[in-house]
Amino acid sequence: MRRIKLTVAYDGTEYCGWQIQPNGITIEEILNREISSLTGEEIRVIGASRTDSGVHALGNVAVFDTECSIPPERIAYALNRRMPDDIVIMKSEEVSHDWHPRYQDVITKTYEYHIYNADVPNPMKRRTTAFVSFPLDIEKMREGAAYVVGEHDFASFCNVRTNTNDTVRTVYEITVEKREDEIVIRIKGNGFLYNMVRIIAGVLIRVGRGFYEPEKVRDILEEKKRTEAGVTAPPQGLVLIGIDYNKEN
Amino acid sequence: MRRIKLTVAYDGTEYCGWQIQPNGITIEEILNREISSLTGEEIRVIGASRTDSGVHALGNVAVFDTECSIPPERIAYALNRRMPDDIVIMKSEEVSHDWHPRYQDVITKTYEYHIYNADVPNPMKRRTTAFVSFPLDIEKMREGAAYVVGEHDFASFCNVRTNTNDTVRTVYEITVEKREDEIVIRIKGNGFLYNMVRIIAGVLIRVGRGFYEPEKVRDILEEKKRTEAGVTAPPQGLVLIGIDYNKEN
Repeated sequence: MRRIKLTVAYDGTEYCGWQIQPNGITIEEILNREISSLTGEEIRVIGASRTDSGVHALGNVAVFDTECSIPPERIAYALNRRMPDDIVIMKSEEVSHDWHPRYQDVITKTYEYHIYNADVPNPMKRRTTAFVSFPLDIEKMREGAAYVVGEHDFASFCNVRTNTNDTVRTVYEITVEKREDEIVIRIKGNGFLYNMVRIIAGVLIRVGRGFYEPEKVRDILEEKKRTEAGVTAPPQGLVLIGIDYNKEN
Repeated sequence: MRRIKLTVAYDGTEYCGWQIQPNGITIEEILNREISSLTGEEIRVIGASRTDSGVHALGNVAVFDTECSIPPERIAYALNRRMPDDIVIMKSEEVSHDWHPRYQDVITKTYEYHIYNADVPNPMKRRTTAFVSFPLDIEKMREGAAYVVGEHDFASFCNVRTNTNDTVRTVYEITVEKREDEIVIRIKGNGFLYNMVRIIAGVLIRVGRGFYEPEKVRDILEEKKRTEAGVTAPPQGLVLIGIDYNKEN
């Protein structure tokens, strides 16, 4: 029995998120189905990040155990021939039997939130950006963003339905930059609470349009009160860029 | 009766191109339906460019005549509330009664062809780029591209099914540049033959991977022989960026 680690990219538009659920088709479900069909076993992958409905990934991670004889690094290729074209296995590799994509000592996750900021929406960007028609002040967004860097109790930056008591996380870095006609918020941390990046994006959009002062980010952080959906930026702007395991295997 | 000019953007993925046809839904059909429903008249738009199935636009142009009392510049707003979200009216304005989007003295059209050049396809780019896994040499693509600039008989750069005898066109400018992880061929000209930009892109991709020398572009041009589909780059990489009418209205 070998444990295989997959790096998975997807356009999440057509999926009800990562995790299997009764209301619609999910990434996890497609992976289980196609890997089972490839190996002839009944495969259940374990994923690193349960991304929400409509959220994308360029580097989500999943593992599964198999007896199949396909060389580990060829599994990506074999799977990509079966996958729908909005899910791509970027890489496959063997890891040790006890390697788990969520329970590692050191994990760094990187997300990007993409905003299309113009008078009129761009139909070619509607699946991969949030559209904001108010002009956004990037400098003010940067000032506001600076307050989330470091170890904080992010209770105010998670959804009321967050299923954990430990709301302390560390944000290593956050940048706000203009890339052609998009504004991209890029954030690295040791983990993110439910909706945390989308709430940070939602608050920074309010800062960018002048509805909040940059210091409001600090005030919200200090409130430590879980958030209703109102300020949460929409899912299509969010991409899980990748997960770094410093102590891999 | 007033003539209204629309600037139209769309993600062409789900459409059988611009022009109405029996096999599937088209951009023209949606425009006719939604404008007719808005004004209560039976509207038939006249389009500038009949883009192919799967091809996108940020600035295609169409006109229609109407008796409706909505201020011309508000028609875009009213239509966008009815349009599917992959078609957006960027602008609406009144033009003179005899203004025609194809028959003007001076027209400059700008297209871009987007290539995603990497080992593994990116599912978030699959609708808007052509995927090429062979490494492409941009410098050689630029050398090859230079041969198409100027007034030429582009017979070799049109499809065998091209419905015209006059295959002379002028390319004003062509650039090949790297934009993040995409290679973008941008081309401006006074008009383009059927599949012309996609054939130029297909030939330049062959140059970029070393299959053709850059001088081959000149040789193909000199052959003046219409082309089978083989070398035509796929539709999803192509975007009609815009149409400039120097003697507008």
